Amino acid sequence: MSLEFLHTTLGQRVLFGSGKASQHLVEEVERLGAKRIMVIASGFEAQMAREVAADIDVALWHHEVVMHVPLDVAQRARQTAADNEIDLLVCVGGGSTTGLAKAVAMTTALPIVAVPTTYAGSEATNVWGLTEDEFKRTGVDDKVLPVTVIYDAQLTLSLPVELSIASGLNGMAHCIDSMWGPRVDPINMALSAEGIRALASGLSRITKDPLDLDGREQALYGAYLSAVAFASAGSGIHHKICHVLGGTFNLPHAQTHATVLPYVLAFNAAAAPEAAERIAAALGSDDALDGLQKLRAQLDAPKALADYGFTEADIPLAVSTVLPLIPANNPQAPTEENLTALLSAALRGEDPATLFTPVLNG
Amino acid sequence: MSLEFLHTTLGQRVLFGSGKASQHLVEEVERLGAKRIMVIASGFEAQMAREVAADIDVALWHHEVVMHVPLDVAQRARQTAADNEIDLLVCVGGGSTTGLAKAVAMTTALPIVAVPTTYAGSEATNVWGLTEDEFKRTGVDDKVLPVTVIYDAQLTLSLPVELSIASGLNGMAHCIDSMWGPRVDPINMALSAEGIRALASGLSRITKDPLDLDGREQALYGAYLSAVAFASAGSGIHHKICHVLGGTFNLPHAQTHATVLPYVLAFNAAAAPEAAERIAAALGSDDALDGLQKLRAQLDAPKALADYGFTEADIPLAVSTVLPLIPANNPQAPTEENLTALLSAALRGEDPATLFTPVLNG
Repeated sequence: MSLEFLHTTLGQRVLFGSGKASQHLVEEVERLGAKRIMVIASGFEAQMAREVAADIDVALWHHEVVMHVPLDVAQRARQTAADNEIDLLVCVGGGSTTGLAKAVAMTTALPIVAVPTTYAGSEATNVWGLTEDEFKRTGVDDKVLPVTVIYDAQLTLSLPVELSIASGLNGMAHCIDSMWGPRVDPINMALSAEGIRALASGLSRITKDPLDLDGREQALYGAYLSAVAFASAGSGIHHKICHVLGGTFNLPHAQTHATVLPYVLAFNAAAAPEAAERIAAALGSDDALDGLQKLRAQLDAPKALADYGFTEADIPLAVSTVLPLIPANNPQAPTEENLTALLSAALRGEDPATLFTPVLNG
Repeated sequence: MSLEFLHTTLGQRVLFGSGKASQHLVEEVERLGAKRIMVIASGFEAQMAREVAADIDVALWHHEVVMHVPLDVAQRARQTAADNEIDLLVCVGGGSTTGLAKAVAMTTALPIVAVPTTYAGSEATNVWGLTEDEFKRTGVDDKVLPVTVIYDAQLTLSLPVELSIASGLNGMAHCIDSMWGPRVDPINMALSAEGIRALASGLSRITKDPLDLDGREQALYGAYLSAVAFASAGSGIHHKICHVLGGTFNLPHAQTHATVLPYVLAFNAAAAPEAAERIAAALGSDDALDGLQKLRAQLDAPKALADYGFTEADIPLAVSTVLPLIPANNPQAPTEENLTALLSAALRGEDPATLFTPVLNG
């Protein structure tokens, strides 16, 4: 099969080391020659941020961090950065914190050094999001890509296990959906496979022992790769389905992703043998779905959409809403019938293994 | 084992498509808004370059391309670019052609769009090289990294099979040596593994049919990844050995690499189980060395350094020259004894399989 793709590699430094965040931050501040640093961290993470920034001069602390980055919050942070002649943004926290730094960088072109404390992955992408009048706009701008990411798995030790697993499985969904996203290419597939390997290893260790630092490192590293691959490949069928289930039916984000993933994998696997093979190998299994289900069992992952308020009656609307959104390159050609089968099985938590016969797309 | 690394991802666009080079070049010229384009191509590849550049306005053709980029050649090209108010460099050719474009970009900061016609890989790195008084200096400068690479496997169809295999095995050596290079990290390992997979598939197809376009695509794609991984991981033991064999004993570059590679793999494999496992999987084999040797047999790769002028008497000097150059992180601790064993076996083309027992480093 002929190889044709456009791949944009985003230039970025990644410094990875447990217990090294403050030292790495000193090195980066020196390398960048920054003099007036604004550290963004939510009140909740202020203490952790102060430890990370212990050895640098901080011109300004900014703690007003709000989920989904409301525009007025962004504008206050932008104004503060301008008023204080800031020349470097350092963000310590999860997706909302990184998101606020990005919102500032968008209009000021200030460089960002990101120190993530969750598996959100925003630090590895050039995607920004802003919320105005309850509507979230997103866009792509290279200015918002952090120049450097400092990963320190010790900062993730306090992330509760349940949240770690949910967030890690979200990363796993990014990886698997990258295997057939609209801009999929073999580079994305290779990075996704590495992300799957790392996440599977990390999450199963964290389940056994939340303080297992090696496990935390693997999960954090896997989450980084999942973001890199997903930003490049774009939203595939899995994310289209989950977006509709969340947006139209108000199902909870993490649980929806975790529940739907094996059904999407079963849906596409037979029609996407190369992706299935890479996923299986990354999971250390002979079969992709089998490997995923074994991992999910280990992690005690959620099983049925019915447990989160989705009902049989919702299926037709969900199917008709999802159907036109599915990328044209999806390996399995979607139909009203097979999408109904997918959602019905996911509703009830039925075994996805024998649900689908491949109907090759295109 | 704890995960600690610094990884620099170089930002770059890659446009990959057979028969698409001229169309992709038009798109890039438009995207970059370039008005005064200098196309660099050797006389030998001028015709091919004219076809690639058929649909763009070329302000200047530059055909003085010389191996290893002599400084005076570089200076003439820089002057020409300045005299003609060039705003974009397009290079069509192999490593020397890309190298000349890089030499110009170094001092002018002009952007480069590279259209490689071999597996040299220079287009994917920020490394430059210049030769003055027969001494080649190399260095690293982000200004010389092409902003865009346009890969078109049709441009490689005329690359003779023997040269394709030699060059492809050189790429394979980059991938394998990246598994334990001084700056190795799991990202390099993942990209290397993907490169090994693609090169193995591509080279074995090209051996069977030099005009197999799918095979050419895989080899070109693999060569790109080998350059990305190697630039990041740095020269490992394999390249240190081959550099000495080439520099001090004048052995031919490609044949030396192809001959030495299985011995280095045998040397390190037992002491580097993760690398060995990734190499094996990428070669579709249960065992890394076994997979490499089967591929080498298929490709009829060179077998013994004795065939290229290396002798028993050369071994002590080679060993003492190589020994201090081997990176401290090499998985197998090098000694005079085991390096002598490596070179003796490579000299005679002996089976490397049972040569080494692992002595773990560090």
